[in-house]
Amino acid sequence: MAGSTWGTIFRITTWGESHGKGVGVTIDGCPAGLSLCQEEIQRYLDRRKPGQSRFATARQEGDQIEILSGVFEGKTTGTPIGLMVRNQDQRSRDYSNIMEVYRPGHADYCFDAKYGFRDYRGGGRSSGRETIGRVAAGAIAGKLLAAYGIRVDAYTKSIGEIEVDPSRFDLTVRDQNQLYMPDVVAAKQASAYLENLMKEQDSAGGVVECIIRGAPAGIGEPVFDKLDACLAKAVMSIGAVKGFEVGDGFAAARSRGSVNNDCFYVDSSGKVKKRTNHAGGILGGISDGSDIVFRAAFKPTPSIARSQETVNRAGENVEITVKGRHDPIVVPRAVVVVEAMAALTVADLLLMGKSARMEADEMPW
Amino acid sequence: MAGSTWGTIFRITTWGESHGKGVGVTIDGCPAGLSLCQEEIQRYLDRRKPGQSRFATARQEGDQIEILSGVFEGKTTGTPIGLMVRNQDQRSRDYSNIMEVYRPGHADYCFDAKYGFRDYRGGGRSSGRETIGRVAAGAIAGKLLAAYGIRVDAYTKSIGEIEVDPSRFDLTVRDQNQLYMPDVVAAKQASAYLENLMKEQDSAGGVVECIIRGAPAGIGEPVFDKLDACLAKAVMSIGAVKGFEVGDGFAAARSRGSVNNDCFYVDSSGKVKKRTNHAGGILGGISDGSDIVFRAAFKPTPSIARSQETVNRAGENVEITVKGRHDPIVVPRAVVVVEAMAALTVADLLLMGKSARMEADEMPW
Amino acid sequence: MAGSTWGTIFRITTWGESHGKGVGVTIDGCPAGLSLCQEEIQRYLDRRKPGQSRFATARQEGDQIEILSGVFEGKTTGTPIGLMVRNQDQRSRDYSNIMEVYRPGHADYCFDAKYGFRDYRGGGRSSGRETIGRVAAGAIAGKLLAAYGIRVDAYTKSIGEIEVDPSRFDLTVRDQNQLYMPDVVAAKQASAYLENLMKEQDSAGGVVECIIRGAPAGIGEPVFDKLDACLAKAVMSIGAVKGFEVGDGFAAARSRGSVNNDCFYVDSSGKVKKRTNHAGGILGGISDGSDIVFRAAFKPTPSIARSQETVNRAGENVEITVKGRHDPIVVPRAVVVVEAMAALTVADLLLMGKSARMEADEMPW
Amino acid sequence: MAGSTWGTIFRITTWGESHGKGVGVTIDGCPAGLSLCQEEIQRYLDRRKPGQSRFATARQEGDQIEILSGVFEGKTTGTPIGLMVRNQDQRSRDYSNIMEVYRPGHADYCFDAKYGFRDYRGGGRSSGRETIGRVAAGAIAGKLLAAYGIRVDAYTKSIGEIEVDPSRFDLTVRDQNQLYMPDVVAAKQASAYLENLMKEQDSAGGVVECIIRGAPAGIGEPVFDKLDACLAKAVMSIGAVKGFEVGDGFAAARSRGSVNNDCFYVDSSGKVKKRTNHAGGILGGISDGSDIVFRAAFKPTPSIARSQETVNRAGENVEITVKGRHDPIVVPRAVVVVEAMAALTVADLLLMGKSARMEADEMPW
Repeated sequence: MAGSTWGTIFRITTWGESHGKGVGVTIDGCPAGLSLCQEEIQRYLDRRKPGQSRFATARQEGDQIEILSGVFEGKTTGTPIGLMVRNQDQRSRDYSNIMEVYRPGHADYCFDAKYGFRDYRGGGRSSGRETIGRVAAGAIAGKLLAAYGIRVDAYTKSIGEIEVDPSRFDLTVRDQNQLYMPDVVAAKQASAYLENLMKEQDSAGGVVECIIRGAPAGIGEPVFDKLDACLAKAVMSIGAVKGFEVGDGFAAARSRGSVNNDCFYVDSSGKVKKRTNHAGGILGGISDGSDIVFRAAFKPTPSIARSQETVNRAGENVEITVKGRHDPIVVPRAVVVVEAMAALTVADLLLMGKSARMEADEMPW
Repeated sequence: MAGSTWGTIFRITTWGESHGKGVGVTIDGCPAGLSLCQEEIQRYLDRRKPGQSRFATARQEGDQIEILSGVFEGKTTGTPIGLMVRNQDQRSRDYSNIMEVYRPGHADYCFDAKYGFRDYRGGGRSSGRETIGRVAAGAIAGKLLAAYGIRVDAYTKSIGEIEVDPSRFDLTVRDQNQLYMPDVVAAKQASAYLENLMKEQDSAGGVVECIIRGAPAGIGEPVFDKLDACLAKAVMSIGAVKGFEVGDGFAAARSRGSVNNDCFYVDSSGKVKKRTNHAGGILGGISDGSDIVFRAAFKPTPSIARSQETVNRAGENVEITVKGRHDPIVVPRAVVVVEAMAALTVADLLLMGKSARMEADEMPW
Repeated sequence: MAGSTWGTIFRITTWGESHGKGVGVTIDGCPAGLSLCQEEIQRYLDRRKPGQSRFATARQEGDQIEILSGVFEGKTTGTPIGLMVRNQDQRSRDYSNIMEVYRPGHADYCFDAKYGFRDYRGGGRSSGRETIGRVAAGAIAGKLLAAYGIRVDAYTKSIGEIEVDPSRFDLTVRDQNQLYMPDVVAAKQASAYLENLMKEQDSAGGVVECIIRGAPAGIGEPVFDKLDACLAKAVMSIGAVKGFEVGDGFAAARSRGSVNNDCFYVDSSGKVKKRTNHAGGILGGISDGSDIVFRAAFKPTPSIARSQETVNRAGENVEITVKGRHDPIVVPRAVVVVEAMAALTVADLLLMGKSARMEADEMPW
Repeated sequence: MAGSTWGTIFRITTWGESHGKGVGVTIDGCPAGLSLCQEEIQRYLDRRKPGQSRFATARQEGDQIEILSGVFEGKTTGTPIGLMVRNQDQRSRDYSNIMEVYRPGHADYCFDAKYGFRDYRGGGRSSGRETIGRVAAGAIAGKLLAAYGIRVDAYTKSIGEIEVDPSRFDLTVRDQNQLYMPDVVAAKQASAYLENLMKEQDSAGGVVECIIRGAPAGIGEPVFDKLDACLAKAVMSIGAVKGFEVGDGFAAARSRGSVNNDCFYVDSSGKVKKRTNHAGGILGGISDGSDIVFRAAFKPTPSIARSQETVNRAGENVEITVKGRHDPIVVPRAVVVVEAMAALTVADLLLMGKSARMEADEMPW
């Protein structure tokens, strides 16, 4: 156990630390017969690779994925898919500044409190490199969903106070700017904001939004494994995420029933639809056939070059300056991680739902 | 599976529908030797019982808990604790208005889409009565946590736009008003707001906040079973919750690293503490020894007396008027449900953490 | 956790003790739309009810099942099915002889060692009454399997040294004798053997065999969740079972490859079949389309009236005489328990297999 | 899911095929602070390595283990331990004889029936190489158990009809013969028997026995996760195992209660002991403090050089001759696999038991 496994049917288990030999993931429960090649996974990984923008760490990593098992003659076999990325940039460093000292905003202190010691090299298991396994597995989940006509897209909705303007929203421009914002004007403003923060040796947070299109009604289990509950856990399990909301989220708490309820209607083709989507595509924990929309709030990167007050393992008050160049914001690189976790969650619940009814021919999928 | 089970070690499974014979829960994995009596569970249940305030449904239910197993001579035996509440107020009703018609904002349509049909009596499994099992089990989890010096307290933070004023915050007054607000002035304003909404046949949402005190550092598993991720799922699995945040939550996304980082220091007794608690007591998914603070956003009750546009099972556009008296707000009765889910989650991760280290004598608990 | 849950998709959780208020089970994950009534479950339960034969305990129990949830208008709804049997024969007894003394062959000592104390009334949770939940849930699993054309039949294969003669094997006579033997001659011999043992205040063991007919090839997961591995655990989890074998079992260990291998052939209808079935219908942990055949060895009932050497809680050597009338053999009443566990296991793996392939139309079921 | 995961707290997930890039395992939930080096794992693996005896396949594999994560400065960190062995002997072969034809006694047909196709190279996932992950993880579980004073030892009890003579039993000679028999005379007889079988192009089965010493009373969960039930599944999940028994096993079914019951007594040191151990150290599914003893029956190796009747994918009756040199018996190499599975099972239940009681200072461990 110990928390490195996600999913019940489409189940992944990740391993690896920032400065160990590598990071990896095993996917068990992927149906047989899904066509899959290394490049399809690599394309996802490249979206979170470091060293790609001036707002991301300069660590040099090829992050080259290797499929170790579970794929034969270009198709998944139904047996576990082993994936691995070897760490490259593990050059001998001076870790003395974080070996004995707890970085504010990081998990250093908590790991020591829990386990008695920790792999202090670059954050060890709590490093952002841990997400490589999620993204690699998420690429496969995404491909599975595509076969069911389901598409998952995430993007940066806001950085600090700068937010995407709904009137300028254009998903096609997302990949044309380093911040993965679907609004070129906001992206430019956010870049300037970040440049300024970097000069001040400070960092920013932001919000990632995710839209899942094409999901049939019926995904999600009542009570504890509600679709939104599972998505919440999936997304909150990404480092630095401090909040999650679906549909109108916290704004719904200030609304009224007469406004917040989405009225159903039957469209000209006889399909049940909703006039609005305050619910974000989920009612009672089960998808309703509308777009599924959720948001995740990321805190500012805790690693900042400024001197900060903290304590060391010996229990003394000390100052710490976190050396090295760090991402002034994690949000752009986290976009694909959010997409991956959403895809993993929906894929698992989709497969789970295959046994919801006795009559297979009446099943929604 | 199918989603009625929560937890890995301290594991609960609930059953029951709104207008079936009753609702219940089985708790497996509660350690032996915890003293427990029916009254302790009843006290929790009474906090969510209907018919207690003018803002809650008038349904008459004693909600009398019965311990069926797992307790012997006043102590838990380590074997499953079976709990049941018989439904009383199941008088024959006219369900024709919801049998064939999908209520907006409810799970009716989604259940039919998933299963082909549904128990339409009062919402069936998606009724708020489903939370009785959670609260009953949560009472036991709360008692377990108390033995470790951990205390869970939730309260209404806001109703509609009316929010508790931090300067007036007083947890001791929470139980003195029907809205469970720790601020008598806000409670009075919110009551007036709700009275008005009821006249307009409308409903309100709100925010519940929860504080967990006394938790040692080290609770939570890295990666997928982070403490905040588990709390997020726990709370989002409660019907009507649309958002979750820990510590500063969404506000952290607009902050800066230099502000959002909580500095550590050693206090005069040699204990590691934090100057601030923007993180809400969790770093890297593991408790840091500070108060754990989170919030849940509840949408307005979807059952409103106004006529609404919707569709029926036959796929026709129709009007619906949800009859009967309904809670104009679910928040006050949900406070104890949030408490219960938090207690269940922390208890499970606490027990899980018992095998985090080889050296039992060095364990944090 | 703590071991009261079986299955992943078709998942059951049992509760209850011998002399508590009752025993029960919750089934979560049963597909919606299975027609089900109380009588179908009752029929299974009646096969394990006490007081039915001179070889079974005289305890008077109606063992009347009550469906508490999950069934609506005669069909399963896809939500948890709660089932309960109230204990009736709980009259105040004198338990002093087993309260402080550990019965040889029973779990008394182990429960105290594990939990510090135990519910000593009639064995508490380790009583044979615990199997009521299994049988009730197994009745539903059996019904599910029937819809797929799968039938599970168990019977007494041997009692003590007396074994069913293959040349006289006739499943139709199984229910015509109190020992559930498919051979009237062996049943008569075994009855005489048991009568004699009872006079000697002694008890017997025996072997139950189970045949699962109609299972398609493809059930079971490779590696750890092999069909035979899951059946082994299912059956070994029944109290008093000390051995499990599939197909030729232990005899295969003395055979040769050229004899033990089952040759495949294509029959006139084009179906792949096997010339022999040494494998018992399972190859590599996956059903091969032949009959699945396994056996379980039950030890002699440990409760015997003879005086036996043992120890008490105070750590003193004492003598014990287990009072009351006990089954001189558990095998006949265990036949339906074996059937139930087999049905639960196959049903779960069958549903699990629904996501084995991408192409639903090529799936074996 | 899909069956490649074992354990709840001490949880392993394996991956890899016979002729893919390699095989591996991830262990999640190993407590932090266990000292561990590559050599300790390698020593276990070397016991199952091919090419070591004239009774084992001549495949040349170094089976060199690599620790990829989870160990830092010689100690486990509490985070997942990634282990991998690269396959070496994957030279291009002619698989045409098994690509289209189903080998009798193998899983070929079942994999095709389940998944629609299979990785036919050397058995793919159903190859004996799959056990490498089990053994590597088992080495770590064994080390964990050693820290609690628990030792697991398996050995060959019989090959074909040749059985270890109890009067000659000597565990110290086990590793001095290629068959891992604790009886040099029996080993010599079995060698001659196997030589003869090989001349006849045939194969043999056998029985492995395992003794677990030093386990405290209290390991195992009541009802479904009984210690013997878990051991049964663990062992039956090893390819080629057809039977499992604990203590007297199938012989107990022919015994009497007065003989089969193990009487308790208090020894001179005040410890509760048993006069006999017919139960094999487990009562009611919970360890009783005696040696835990179980046996596994292995069928004869199905790969034999003789021509056999079978079918091909096209559904035609054909003859097959399995080429290459195969183990005429799997038992000797399986001994360490049985040990590994036993260690994994006991370690998991031991950690699970850490939360059995409220009062930590009264816990058995």
